[in-house]
Amino acid sequence: MKRWKQIRGRIRRPDPEIRRKALRHWNNLTKPLGSLGRLEETAIRLAGITGEVVPDLSRKAVLVMCGDHGVAEEGVSAYPQEVTGLMIDNFARGGAAINVLARRFGAELVVVDVGSKAKKLPPSVIDRRVRPGTANMTAGPAMTREEALQALDVGIDRVEELVRGGVRMIAIGEMGIGNTTAGTAIAAVFTGRPVEVLTGRGTGIDDRAVLRKREAIRRAIEVNRPDPADPIGVLAKVGGLEIAGMAGAVLGAAAAGIPVVLDGMISTAAALAAARLLPEASEYLFASHLSAEPAHRFMLEELGLRPLIDAEMRLGEGTGAVLCFPLIDGALSLAREMATFADLGLAGPAEERAQHESDS
Amino acid sequence: MKRWKQIRGRIRRPDPEIRRKALRHWNNLTKPLGSLGRLEETAIRLAGITGEVVPDLSRKAVLVMCGDHGVAEEGVSAYPQEVTGLMIDNFARGGAAINVLARRFGAELVVVDVGSKAKKLPPSVIDRRVRPGTANMTAGPAMTREEALQALDVGIDRVEELVRGGVRMIAIGEMGIGNTTAGTAIAAVFTGRPVEVLTGRGTGIDDRAVLRKREAIRRAIEVNRPDPADPIGVLAKVGGLEIAGMAGAVLGAAAAGIPVVLDGMISTAAALAAARLLPEASEYLFASHLSAEPAHRFMLEELGLRPLIDAEMRLGEGTGAVLCFPLIDGALSLAREMATFADLGLAGPAEERAQHESDS
Repeated sequence: MKRWKQIRGRIRRPDPEIRRKALRHWNNLTKPLGSLGRLEETAIRLAGITGEVVPDLSRKAVLVMCGDHGVAEEGVSAYPQEVTGLMIDNFARGGAAINVLARRFGAELVVVDVGSKAKKLPPSVIDRRVRPGTANMTAGPAMTREEALQALDVGIDRVEELVRGGVRMIAIGEMGIGNTTAGTAIAAVFTGRPVEVLTGRGTGIDDRAVLRKREAIRRAIEVNRPDPADPIGVLAKVGGLEIAGMAGAVLGAAAAGIPVVLDGMISTAAALAAARLLPEASEYLFASHLSAEPAHRFMLEELGLRPLIDAEMRLGEGTGAVLCFPLIDGALSLAREMATFADLGLAGPAEERAQHESDS
Repeated sequence: MKRWKQIRGRIRRPDPEIRRKALRHWNNLTKPLGSLGRLEETAIRLAGITGEVVPDLSRKAVLVMCGDHGVAEEGVSAYPQEVTGLMIDNFARGGAAINVLARRFGAELVVVDVGSKAKKLPPSVIDRRVRPGTANMTAGPAMTREEALQALDVGIDRVEELVRGGVRMIAIGEMGIGNTTAGTAIAAVFTGRPVEVLTGRGTGIDDRAVLRKREAIRRAIEVNRPDPADPIGVLAKVGGLEIAGMAGAVLGAAAAGIPVVLDGMISTAAALAAARLLPEASEYLFASHLSAEPAHRFMLEELGLRPLIDAEMRLGEGTGAVLCFPLIDGALSLAREMATFADLGLAGPAEERAQHESDS
């Protein structure tokens, strides 16, 4: 039996009773009702997931999945394909953006190669290569269905191991030259929006390259005819190894009952595929930032998620997700440490509180 | 001579040469050009202000200015006026939201009473009360021009003292029942937008109270006829003691050459008044979050600022500003610790880099 099918029955629904308790807790803190906006909403969702009114999520990790893309040969990126391997080395040496942010915000960094063309991997990088890069999706499927399932398992396995080690929240990110092309193709399939609207500049390509990228996405969809009702087929036909890996990480996290913080457009494409496969997994998803990539917004809408940060970032690697960790930590600190109205000898706005509770 | 006039000649323009150097530095880091979006922009602006390509801004403070508002008697808030004093006690006891966030994100918390009606202040609160609350602005000016100048001086003094003590970046925030009414009146005067568009729910008032609040703002403007070309007159007529105090803090920070991170609608009203008084001060302003209060967006537009966080917060106290500190810290850590293309044995995208530089 497929791993992802085994997971289906294991995903618990967030506990509505704990959510109500958490809302009551927030309403008793010394501030106007609901005035911490989506920080409160985030903390209440985390309560429902963890079963604790104020969970301790200080043990966290960022999972960076890497893979190469055959479609890079269509000239869709500002960088040559070798940069995927060079950046994997950079992760191992601690010099990439995600290394800096993971150190700064207290997250363990785990780099997994799901399918790069790198010749030699540094020892700190986990080698789970399914194949050396995808095939060029403009000429046929990026990978076989069996390979997509293997890549999915890489993510599921990795999260299970992290959770066994005590990690209570993960961020997901990626590295792979050409992967905004794959991510945008996935967005087009699942949102039904036109490729012209969804396609962005990725690493910073010029107008001519944008036209090539759109054309590559259109051809990939035409040649492969991905069916949105078959998410594994979508991942295999127009996805990527690291994208399928991140989709697996989402399923693994939902199965383990831990929250997953998404990064930008590509990780959100992976999460959308995971949510189409097992809709109950979407309860475990949290948006971090709104990327400069146009497809991101539409996929977040599909998932019903709103990001906390809006900084026009488009780097990937999980950078936006890890940048959101201190905001989530801050929300939980507020829930843990703020005084209540009773501490101040006040009743609190009880009437409004009752109304607020009945609204939610 | 007025203190604020002495400041005028002391505000330096940010150094364009250091900004160019900072841009070159960012362009050499191992990421696509400009892909950290407004984190890069923020860090480059900070370089221009401090004169250092990668400044160390770890010593930071949040200045919370408090004051009472005569207009509260019009029924414009969900809370009675006594709550201002109770919250001042809460700050002193460490139980308010800003206490939690300041501890969490390493900012010194300084609470200054510029004019509350509190009977007795805790010893940790700095007592610089100009008068015990403003007068009801629907019947005449909130305070005299002389009082507004005194409140301005409170902010200037306090920042000078913090900078002498080694603080290199400040956030400003406020507490004062009724102060979204004053802040919205200031917004109406400076932006020229209709009061109906600008008025929000403040601490969480119902529809009827919103109508009373709009009416109070309209009457205050009609009775006092504040002139947008006279920012001190605007602060005196429809402002507040803590709002004038924050405006002074902005001027003091600009004079001392340190960045000021704004919080929500009310601190932004103060900053807008300061920027109308001394336009060169606006170079020192940084937006943190976009508040749920409708007037906020319009004032940020006037100032040409875009916030990094969008979480529908509306608490005040400087909470959104301090929540932004880890994002700014993160941006500076990236500038300090990321590897360069040369470290990886790559030239970096030199051609595009040249183009990017000529654009900016």
